[in-house]
Amino acid sequence: MNIGIFGTGVVARTLGERLQTAGHAVRLGTRDPAQTRARAEPDGYGNPPFAAWQAQHPDIRLGTYAEAAAHGELLVNATQGAGSLEALRAAGEGNLDGKILMDIANPLDSSRGMPPSLSVANTDSLGEQIQRAFPGVKVVKTLNTVNARVMAYPREVADGEHHVFLSGNEAEAKARVRQLLRDDFGWRHVIDLGDITTARGPEMYLPLWLRLWGALGNGRFNIKVVAGEAA
Amino acid sequence: MNIGIFGTGVVARTLGERLQTAGHAVRLGTRDPAQTRARAEPDGYGNPPFAAWQAQHPDIRLGTYAEAAAHGELLVNATQGAGSLEALRAAGEGNLDGKILMDIANPLDSSRGMPPSLSVANTDSLGEQIQRAFPGVKVVKTLNTVNARVMAYPREVADGEHHVFLSGNEAEAKARVRQLLRDDFGWRHVIDLGDITTARGPEMYLPLWLRLWGALGNGRFNIKVVAGEAA
Repeated sequence: MNIGIFGTGVVARTLGERLQTAGHAVRLGTRDPAQTRARAEPDGYGNPPFAAWQAQHPDIRLGTYAEAAAHGELLVNATQGAGSLEALRAAGEGNLDGKILMDIANPLDSSRGMPPSLSVANTDSLGEQIQRAFPGVKVVKTLNTVNARVMAYPREVADGEHHVFLSGNEAEAKARVRQLLRDDFGWRHVIDLGDITTARGPEMYLPLWLRLWGALGNGRFNIKVVAGEAA
Repeated sequence: MNIGIFGTGVVARTLGERLQTAGHAVRLGTRDPAQTRARAEPDGYGNPPFAAWQAQHPDIRLGTYAEAAAHGELLVNATQGAGSLEALRAAGEGNLDGKILMDIANPLDSSRGMPPSLSVANTDSLGEQIQRAFPGVKVVKTLNTVNARVMAYPREVADGEHHVFLSGNEAEAKARVRQLLRDDFGWRHVIDLGDITTARGPEMYLPLWLRLWGALGNGRFNIKVVAGEAA
């Protein structure tokens, strides 16, 4: 399948590599490809500049947001939450309509210090904002509750005995994303939370994730939902 | 130990019974004990009126918030989050100062429909509000991420293989609460998230908890944190 991924950071790279290896044709999208290729410094997290990564992955092409969107039968929003709506506008509604958009971004706001807070929360979510702004795209919120490595290689943590969530308005879109999570990434446990408004749950989990990261000193973790007998 | 619990709902009752059985002397506090005893209808969740429960638990005494606070060497805030600050003001600063307050409440706001949103979130939390309003009490946020039964009987779910969190400014207070969670309730896994500002994490988990409750159809669940090897 042709897959377009918006973003060129560690999340986009990790998922892009994993999906390309699984047999898909991946194209990454960015605002200004020439500028992205010209960066010579590591990013804020110490990851190598894009050009160094691309030299190792020549089969994954870089284009504009619009080119990645036009290429993809299925799309992935791996931009930073603060820039997601702008990236999708640049992708162009005509390139989005009718397609599934896996929204894996978090609306993190570091302007008020660390750890980040959320720029949208409680009575709205980034997933809902995207769905409202682009009613023709089928938004499925997922994977935002784990770091890039766990997204793409869930079996590396507790042999995959932990959970990821789905929120979205279309059952068929969620079924296709569930299949991709299972077949291409190896996710064993996927919980459908309901419509896109339920994205508030996994997005508002981020503040706990950030503190757990601090307490554990390691971002390679996730949560497993364990249930007892009903009363 | 003498323990004062603020609240008379299912959370206060379940914890009160569990702590009394563990050998503590528990007193519950309410705004108006006569009114609480006079209620003849089940509460909004279908639990029997307080008088019916108390007839089965005559050793657990009911008093005002101030009486429960004066009684307790350790205090538990099991009121509804929207009424917590008012309850603590009624308890009286002099009855709180120097004591540990386990804050297990959630700032749920049902006024905007179901599921509830949070009345405070993101850049503040109920735990912090309480600590700011009562600087002499040692607030330890905990247990708010599970329902009453799981709080008091964690081994009933997956034999206790799941996590609860601590947030608070005083290491010694957190150590005492950790001991109580382990010895009196049977918690196996307790993660210290840090100071009271980290209460934003477990409080903002509630929107996910509420959707999981919907998806699972059963409130007797919790999350287990599973970690892989660091990169």
